[in-house]
Amino acid sequence: MTAKIYQFLADHQPDTPCLIVDLDVIAENYNALNRYLPTARVFYAVKANPAPEILGMLGRLGSSFDTASRPEIEMVLAEGVTPDRISFGNTIKKERDIAWAFARGVDLFAFDSEAELEKLARSAPGARVFCRLLMTCEGADWPLSRKFGCEADMARDLLVRARDLGLEPYGISFHVGSQQTRLDQWDIAIGKTAMLFTELNAAGIELKMINLGGGLPAHYRDEVAPVGDYSNAIMNAMTKHFGNNLPLMIVEPGRSLVGDSGILEAEVVLIARKSYEDAVRWVYLDIGKFGGLAETMDEAIKYRLQVPGDGDCGPVVLAGPTCDSADILYEKNQYSLPMSLKVGDKIRILATGAYTTTYAAVNFNGFAPLKAYYV
Amino acid sequence: MTAKIYQFLADHQPDTPCLIVDLDVIAENYNALNRYLPTARVFYAVKANPAPEILGMLGRLGSSFDTASRPEIEMVLAEGVTPDRISFGNTIKKERDIAWAFARGVDLFAFDSEAELEKLARSAPGARVFCRLLMTCEGADWPLSRKFGCEADMARDLLVRARDLGLEPYGISFHVGSQQTRLDQWDIAIGKTAMLFTELNAAGIELKMINLGGGLPAHYRDEVAPVGDYSNAIMNAMTKHFGNNLPLMIVEPGRSLVGDSGILEAEVVLIARKSYEDAVRWVYLDIGKFGGLAETMDEAIKYRLQVPGDGDCGPVVLAGPTCDSADILYEKNQYSLPMSLKVGDKIRILATGAYTTTYAAVNFNGFAPLKAYYV
Repeated sequence: MTAKIYQFLADHQPDTPCLIVDLDVIAENYNALNRYLPTARVFYAVKANPAPEILGMLGRLGSSFDTASRPEIEMVLAEGVTPDRISFGNTIKKERDIAWAFARGVDLFAFDSEAELEKLARSAPGARVFCRLLMTCEGADWPLSRKFGCEADMARDLLVRARDLGLEPYGISFHVGSQQTRLDQWDIAIGKTAMLFTELNAAGIELKMINLGGGLPAHYRDEVAPVGDYSNAIMNAMTKHFGNNLPLMIVEPGRSLVGDSGILEAEVVLIARKSYEDAVRWVYLDIGKFGGLAETMDEAIKYRLQVPGDGDCGPVVLAGPTCDSADILYEKNQYSLPMSLKVGDKIRILATGAYTTTYAAVNFNGFAPLKAYYV
Repeated sequence: MTAKIYQFLADHQPDTPCLIVDLDVIAENYNALNRYLPTARVFYAVKANPAPEILGMLGRLGSSFDTASRPEIEMVLAEGVTPDRISFGNTIKKERDIAWAFARGVDLFAFDSEAELEKLARSAPGARVFCRLLMTCEGADWPLSRKFGCEADMARDLLVRARDLGLEPYGISFHVGSQQTRLDQWDIAIGKTAMLFTELNAAGIELKMINLGGGLPAHYRDEVAPVGDYSNAIMNAMTKHFGNNLPLMIVEPGRSLVGDSGILEAEVVLIARKSYEDAVRWVYLDIGKFGGLAETMDEAIKYRLQVPGDGDCGPVVLAGPTCDSADILYEKNQYSLPMSLKVGDKIRILATGAYTTTYAAVNFNGFAPLKAYYV
């Protein structure tokens, strides 16, 4: 809880649920990351929170931007950012969106398949392209499945083919999984990437860039290592695998820049027990899985809570306000809240600056999407 | 695929992804349900699809409405429906919303806990209230967890307390789980309810209403019994447990009224393999879990697909277009699609009239919410 957020809540007492984001925290996180990884160029992952206030501020601080779609590119351009600071980082793009972006001056594209490469060759001729490697993501709270990336031997062949199609084979990207807590995962991924650099060199292709993706954590319920530890792990692995010949490094932080900047205020709508024998109270909030807390899916992200009162605590199930029975936040990961908690109390959900506002359903059960304030 | 939807797609060739709903199908489903369950009053579960076109048409046909929130009540009232045809069916309500609804003439409220009953007594004095029973929901594709309802002995005590607080203890509700495929679940639930009627009678309280909830299925990938079989199962159980003294019956269909009325057209954005050894193709559509197909969560609802081409088929993983690795539709439930499928092809996702439009995220990854047309 920062002083600015505290002041805003005290002054405005906004209707709940609402998210308050402190832009200064994001600026600090951005500056800290630049200090920790001075050799890396920061591409903010717009999907984490595309609020114009955030994009504008990071643009003025000099950040580049990783975008997932044409509308995200439009939002970044609208803040006065030049297209050379934009990466179209989604490996799944409609060809007409590639052509549109290329016409606007965007010149850096992700891919992980032959079909995507062919679209790029047709609709963004000569563009810089990077291939995403498939990683296993062990240790990530929000792991990445096999949806993105391809195996290393296919990546090598595709980068050769990129050259043959008239594109510029620019680099390799990977993602170790969002909220990754195992530092050794970067060593594995960077080692794999360095091997590909060597193999492609033998084929006459000099890759220039390694895109380390995101994965740096925000601070949820469990303790995480400080960003400095992550940066050290990354730089040690870079030096170990690339020696003195470091390629251009790109990082794509989303969660680690904006996650900690936001506090979500919610109201306790109901506290109930299901039977007389039940030790567990059900605590229903006015926000749930469909109102912005989608990352509680399978209880993946475990937010910290700030609740009024103290004294004895007891186990609770936390759930949202909709008539959807899947709208439960935490049932298996038992949370414990004061026995004195009552209907109407305000609860603050910490580190909710990332992956909340845009995850909110458009009108599910009639509930409006999450309202957000940027201070 | 109805003739009207076919014609609309041919005439307008709308941008994908989009949902086309045939209102005639909904009217037919509504009329059929009234024929099958002539003694029951239909309360359409607005949350399934709150489009004004649907609410208006069902209102004119004489339907009543089950609502989850103040905005849903406002939408129904805006279609000229009188408040005596509205049930505020969410057991989790802010007290100010109860007061607002009561002031508008809504007089029928759900509850399942003492705290909710106290809110109702204060803010809707004298209103008709019904208590929701906790059911186990075996056999439901979208089961209901323990989020709603309370155990039978608590329900009995709460209905007695409702009377003591000056409310009218009106009835019992339950929900056997959405897309329920086991017909015997209704017998169990109706039997439990009848026992409560008897027990409360002994306490001097004559309940008037049994709310059978929803749970009637739409037609997804697996075959389901026709609505007639469900109606028979329900009426047999009603007669078995209540004899000639049938209470007022309420049903709250959502999925079974509107599910089959909608067809979602999507485009194949990319087809890729992850490695050379991989037999499975990844097929990426321009709609996914966050664009309206949220019910593919844990692969619960298995939609039928209509794709161009025929000939040999092979296994696919179906995924959405966002950079979110959780945005996968079907990976474990293997779908098989023609080997001739190609990027740019249109795919039609059937029976998507329910729980799609309002589940869409507001702007996730920059993608606009699902566009829908009602014809």
